[in-house]
Amino acid sequence: MKKIKTGIVGLGRLGMHHAEDLFCRIPEAELVAACSVVPEELEKVKAWGITQLYSSYSEMIAKADIEAVVIVSPSAQHAEQIIEAMEAGKHVFSEKPLGVSVEECEKVEKVVETHPKLKFQLGFMRRYDPSYAEAKRKIDSGEIGKPFLFKSTSNDPLATVEGFLKYAPHSGGPWLDMSVHDVDLALWYIGSEVETIYAIGGGYLYPELEKIGCADNACALMKFKNGAMAQMHVGYSSPHGYQVETELYCDGVNLRISAIPAKDRIQIYGRDGVKIECETSWPVRFKDAFLLEKKDFFDCIINDRIPVCGAKDGTLTTKVAIAATKAFETGELIRL
Amino acid sequence: MKKIKTGIVGLGRLGMHHAEDLFCRIPEAELVAACSVVPEELEKVKAWGITQLYSSYSEMIAKADIEAVVIVSPSAQHAEQIIEAMEAGKHVFSEKPLGVSVEECEKVEKVVETHPKLKFQLGFMRRYDPSYAEAKRKIDSGEIGKPFLFKSTSNDPLATVEGFLKYAPHSGGPWLDMSVHDVDLALWYIGSEVETIYAIGGGYLYPELEKIGCADNACALMKFKNGAMAQMHVGYSSPHGYQVETELYCDGVNLRISAIPAKDRIQIYGRDGVKIECETSWPVRFKDAFLLEKKDFFDCIINDRIPVCGAKDGTLTTKVAIAATKAFETGELIRL
Amino acid sequence: MKKIKTGIVGLGRLGMHHAEDLFCRIPEAELVAACSVVPEELEKVKAWGITQLYSSYSEMIAKADIEAVVIVSPSAQHAEQIIEAMEAGKHVFSEKPLGVSVEECEKVEKVVETHPKLKFQLGFMRRYDPSYAEAKRKIDSGEIGKPFLFKSTSNDPLATVEGFLKYAPHSGGPWLDMSVHDVDLALWYIGSEVETIYAIGGGYLYPELEKIGCADNACALMKFKNGAMAQMHVGYSSPHGYQVETELYCDGVNLRISAIPAKDRIQIYGRDGVKIECETSWPVRFKDAFLLEKKDFFDCIINDRIPVCGAKDGTLTTKVAIAATKAFETGELIRL
Amino acid sequence: MKKIKTGIVGLGRLGMHHAEDLFCRIPEAELVAACSVVPEELEKVKAWGITQLYSSYSEMIAKADIEAVVIVSPSAQHAEQIIEAMEAGKHVFSEKPLGVSVEECEKVEKVVETHPKLKFQLGFMRRYDPSYAEAKRKIDSGEIGKPFLFKSTSNDPLATVEGFLKYAPHSGGPWLDMSVHDVDLALWYIGSEVETIYAIGGGYLYPELEKIGCADNACALMKFKNGAMAQMHVGYSSPHGYQVETELYCDGVNLRISAIPAKDRIQIYGRDGVKIECETSWPVRFKDAFLLEKKDFFDCIINDRIPVCGAKDGTLTTKVAIAATKAFETGELIRL
Repeated sequence: MKKIKTGIVGLGRLGMHHAEDLFCRIPEAELVAACSVVPEELEKVKAWGITQLYSSYSEMIAKADIEAVVIVSPSAQHAEQIIEAMEAGKHVFSEKPLGVSVEECEKVEKVVETHPKLKFQLGFMRRYDPSYAEAKRKIDSGEIGKPFLFKSTSNDPLATVEGFLKYAPHSGGPWLDMSVHDVDLALWYIGSEVETIYAIGGGYLYPELEKIGCADNACALMKFKNGAMAQMHVGYSSPHGYQVETELYCDGVNLRISAIPAKDRIQIYGRDGVKIECETSWPVRFKDAFLLEKKDFFDCIINDRIPVCGAKDGTLTTKVAIAATKAFETGELIRL
Repeated sequence: MKKIKTGIVGLGRLGMHHAEDLFCRIPEAELVAACSVVPEELEKVKAWGITQLYSSYSEMIAKADIEAVVIVSPSAQHAEQIIEAMEAGKHVFSEKPLGVSVEECEKVEKVVETHPKLKFQLGFMRRYDPSYAEAKRKIDSGEIGKPFLFKSTSNDPLATVEGFLKYAPHSGGPWLDMSVHDVDLALWYIGSEVETIYAIGGGYLYPELEKIGCADNACALMKFKNGAMAQMHVGYSSPHGYQVETELYCDGVNLRISAIPAKDRIQIYGRDGVKIECETSWPVRFKDAFLLEKKDFFDCIINDRIPVCGAKDGTLTTKVAIAATKAFETGELIRL
Repeated sequence: MKKIKTGIVGLGRLGMHHAEDLFCRIPEAELVAACSVVPEELEKVKAWGITQLYSSYSEMIAKADIEAVVIVSPSAQHAEQIIEAMEAGKHVFSEKPLGVSVEECEKVEKVVETHPKLKFQLGFMRRYDPSYAEAKRKIDSGEIGKPFLFKSTSNDPLATVEGFLKYAPHSGGPWLDMSVHDVDLALWYIGSEVETIYAIGGGYLYPELEKIGCADNACALMKFKNGAMAQMHVGYSSPHGYQVETELYCDGVNLRISAIPAKDRIQIYGRDGVKIECETSWPVRFKDAFLLEKKDFFDCIINDRIPVCGAKDGTLTTKVAIAATKAFETGELIRL
Repeated sequence: MKKIKTGIVGLGRLGMHHAEDLFCRIPEAELVAACSVVPEELEKVKAWGITQLYSSYSEMIAKADIEAVVIVSPSAQHAEQIIEAMEAGKHVFSEKPLGVSVEECEKVEKVVETHPKLKFQLGFMRRYDPSYAEAKRKIDSGEIGKPFLFKSTSNDPLATVEGFLKYAPHSGGPWLDMSVHDVDLALWYIGSEVETIYAIGGGYLYPELEKIGCADNACALMKFKNGAMAQMHVGYSSPHGYQVETELYCDGVNLRISAIPAKDRIQIYGRDGVKIECETSWPVRFKDAFLLEKKDFFDCIINDRIPVCGAKDGTLTTKVAIAATKAFETGELIRL
């Protein structure tokens, strides 16, 4: 059985989650190297028997016996690390975003193009969530018609808002920080590019966010080149849990995904009504998707297939997120 | 427009509800007379302009200018009042039960039979609830197949249990008091008679009920002559509200009616999950059914049709409820 | 018991619905007069015993023995008929819209102001729907916080789209025709006025609509003066039935109203999954609301209360609908 | 990192599922040996690099370098294989049932008792399903009160009934074949033993089943020694998919588990209503539970804990299933 020797960079919350998947849930991968600037993080994977440990990414790329690298470092480092790895002949799986500017994204796109034998995949994991994947299948099969309206809500739990308040000044705003996943889904399902964007928002629960030009809740309305529409709502104040909800209006049937993000299959019939407890975080909501996206990446390497989500998708979503941010900041309608 | 002059006996909670329907929601009826032993109750309908008011039922039947009577008196008086009215040539709509013993029921049945020109309807209002009626329509049309298993839950709200605790010693037990509605539905849908019954229960929240031979929750399993099965659960301890739920397993499709008795169309996304507030009482849950059953009764009079629910249905349900009570009291399997 | 002698103008589908309510479901009203240019429609109410029948509205106002009038005529006649009735000393209940231009609306507003003893109510019946009313109660009581984001979907059933296609050229477009109800709810709940609107749409299923400047689906994003946001979607292509859905994001709790417009309480467990059949029309969805709004109107007359929904609400919603139409037609962001 | 060398016996559908879990989803286990009488099945695991392959169970137990064995062989072999493995000093995880008679079960119980250092776990995987486990946690924590009524539905999909029809004569009937999982849950949640059972059923869709003394749908009503009640329904004819549903009525709050076995988070709004597609098989429904039960088994070995589900649980469930079968066959109430 073919196993791909793999290194990982970044062992924070999401990085460790990816590392565990690589270590024990993906038989096609063999986690052999890891890189982090935090020694305690390296200790954790050392306990699993991983021996090629690095504090320098360049050193790992240069010296480690790996064929592929999984990048889970801070956003600002993605572009250069992708380029460095591909130029060293490694397959690359990188967390989103592809880059923090359109220029960076386009630079990565070119490097990916010049290495056609290497696989590059961008971590828009929602595409691998069984529900989102099934929606795409239903569209592609023609059984529900063509989508003309995409509605989304991505609302982080209120329970974790304190963390966001600290991070907000460096977040790039809700559009770059959060809505890129919705933008990617909209582009993927609709199959066209965004033409106009109007975006508004505010600090409704946390006025301090508004003062720094950020928002705790924001909305955008977009028109696509093919005429389709998208309504997006992003927020950091969901009382009941982590809400990622999507609606697809098609010319045959409409789909709604995750209207209630139930944490399990229990309904509680209690004094105040019938209640469904909800999921409280993205690692839980998208646990399967995080695993499936990497399984598919290794399958692409082994069976020489092109990954579903590539560098171009990263550039497109970044463009839209930047335009939404500009619309939000200026109060003007933006035409792309 | 033909209007049927009508009298009512019994103006308690349910009686007043019926009276209001007769007064202003059924154009085919004209409420002209009322009987109650409680003077305050008569005052209420007097304020509407009703002038033929009686404290004696016999007097109302003898003297009032009425063609029909609606009986909402205590259960023990139903049989004799039905008989008295029919023998005086009145159409009769009576609340359930038909009688408190099988003998009484059969006596009424005979009187009804001997007055074929008079309409008699028994108030099993659930049959008129739009959901229960639609289920019957789906069975009769053949679109869902033939039912072979009926499951029901009839659970009064915990919020009103104090009232039941006082009333319990005179209630006749959960089978005669409450499950007759479920029994009627089961007989109506399945179209066969009960052959065997096993029934158990207890005072799980209110042990004092067990001491007087009653129960706050009880279950029965029944086999019908045609082989079909029924599982029933009756209780007085529903934390979230008034729960009347029914499942029909058919040889094509299964139906479930009112799994969540939502009080309106609101879902509340709050700190403890997604919540649906529920209906808290039968007058609200079956408001439409109480109205529709009487509209149909007057339509039967005007258009000379036979009511859907007659005296025979009352005898059959009483037989089953008595057998269930016996099974519960003796701990034995009862064969009818 | 005080009964208000009432006339009605307009006996089409909605008019007849109102007439039936007045005839037999509102004891406080006495329907004594009716006006229609269609003789067959007058015949219907004649059969109920209504004798004051007119083909001329002015004649009914001048001659009929009525204290109140219910206006259900075509939109273009509302303003002048309201004015004529109030100047003749009648209480007026009028279907929406108040007028077809802001000027008309403001003219009516003034007439209403100059007759403070007469009651005027505009028929935004959704406010009387038990779920929408309960949402308002929850806001006003402070138990769910202050709404900062309103999302709505008003999607007419695909099954009735043929009718709309014929009517579309005279409809005024989706914003004036349909979204006024959503606009009224948004203004009512948010308690502020609209500042900016961006609106888009198209003929996704019926391209012929796009050619005449109309749309089968359209979306708007609005910012209110107090900072709140509204996302609206209107359409004429709902496959499963009549969908009117509303979400209220508040700074405490979020509410969702009618995510699934179930026609009854049945869930069907069949070969293709678990299915809920849906309501197919607004007369069914808002049956109770249509009744309750008129009951409240007559109660306002009898108990000298000011109706919840007045002329000013009509002007405000018309302004927003016209701005949305302009945004949709020009492709520009509109600032009010 | 400690890894437990493990062998597996039985590589059919469920066996292969367990083998895959052992091979690549449980880092604490190392699958090193396998036994099957079907050579093709052994070929599959050989492809993963497993080299200790046997057609004789006794040979695997005697010769393979293993500390633990996972038994997924036909029911009739469970008891003797468990005993053989434990007497050879192996930890044992066995699929249910423990044995096909009470005598066999009690024999196994004794062998397990005489090897206190070896871990034995019975595969009642539902206990590890996140929803069922959460229900148990809620009971144990006292937050929902004490359960007094357990209701269950275990209904295999109609889509797979053909397979059952062939297997039915050897199935032992619905109680031994299927309801043991429900019985185990009821005993686990209620914490008392069954006192009386009444059970009925029939061949409602497949009369041929009735002729061989089997049933396509069957119901039981049980009373426990502590007074609690259980209503069970087992079937092989679920039109919409694999339905395992459970209700727990407690003296505080009621729970309902999996009322709609949604296959994903999609709701389809289509021409015939709002539809939820359902799971079609137990390997999908209980995928996580099958994994978690084995993870816990290996954790019990490594950390010297006693498994949650042991031999005694196997005996108790078998006793109840046999009593239900007797009740069903004789038409009599059975007292244990």
